[in-house]
Amino acid sequence: MRVLGIDPGLTRCGVGVVEGGIGRALTLVEVGVVKTTPELPIEDRLLLISRGIDTWIDATAPDAIAVERVFSQANVKTVMGTAQVSGLALVAAAARGIPVTMHTPSEVKAAVTGSGRADKAQVGAMVARLLRLDAVPKPADAADALALAICHIWRGPATNRIQAAVAAQAAGGAR
Amino acid sequence: MRVLGIDPGLTRCGVGVVEGGIGRALTLVEVGVVKTTPELPIEDRLLLISRGIDTWIDATAPDAIAVERVFSQANVKTVMGTAQVSGLALVAAAARGIPVTMHTPSEVKAAVTGSGRADKAQVGAMVARLLRLDAVPKPADAADALALAICHIWRGPATNRIQAAVAAQAAGGAR
Repeated sequence: MRVLGIDPGLTRCGVGVVEGGIGRALTLVEVGVVKTTPELPIEDRLLLISRGIDTWIDATAPDAIAVERVFSQANVKTVMGTAQVSGLALVAAAARGIPVTMHTPSEVKAAVTGSGRADKAQVGAMVARLLRLDAVPKPADAADALALAICHIWRGPATNRIQAAVAAQAAGGAR
Repeated sequence: MRVLGIDPGLTRCGVGVVEGGIGRALTLVEVGVVKTTPELPIEDRLLLISRGIDTWIDATAPDAIAVERVFSQANVKTVMGTAQVSGLALVAAAARGIPVTMHTPSEVKAAVTGSGRADKAQVGAMVARLLRLDAVPKPADAADALALAICHIWRGPATNRIQAAVAAQAAGGAR
């Protein structure tokens, strides 16, 4: 299973592709960031990121996409941009029929380190260890995207089955 | 000048097109809502709205697009969806090279009623009066989209000049 992890952000949107399965070794396929400068108007920044995400999906052909779930308790200005970028990632996946799942930051941390309250350095160190890399991928957004992809490989199938069951029940109840 | 106003929302995204200019009568071109059901997964809802916005832009060929600026003091769950939809609207405009501007709810209210603290009913009544309609457009999201378009026609050119000047200065300062 090949998973593209997307850590949404306006200035640096982390993207990382990992291949693996439950009980199988994980392999790094590609990692990077889609960057935009704050000097550009918001609509141009979002368009650049949207096109960047499209390019990553089309170039790496993932079987599934994992996006970090955004919460609004953080900085108001930052969270708006992050929410907008996460929406673009969701639409890019849906438009291609690629299954997409959101994972919370604590789910991701717990998946790769065993603790939902691990810090950035710990997450980065575990990402490097799990993917057998010589160094922690930089910037942190890139390492976070890989952590998301790993989290999805380990949690994804179960999460998707639960979501599908809930959705089916909700749709049934609405009839 | 033909302006498409977009009042972003996941369940009901208001869309309204108005033609007019400063010192000229305003004319309703088209108004409606792009709806999605909460039973669908978020990615499918966002994709439907994205395609709905594309269809509205391509069918009505606006000279400018006005989007309501989202704040995060509102309900956490609602605001995420609203932010994501506003991002889709901004990208749809930027992808076509159509100038897009955000207006706050109080700017819109002030533009059409004279008071930034007017209620929904007052905004709806003024939209109907300004566009010489027999009734207030329903639902409120549709009326809000028209109010946004009217606000942009009356405020837009000045706002755009200021934004362009600020952006140019910021870009210059960054060199």
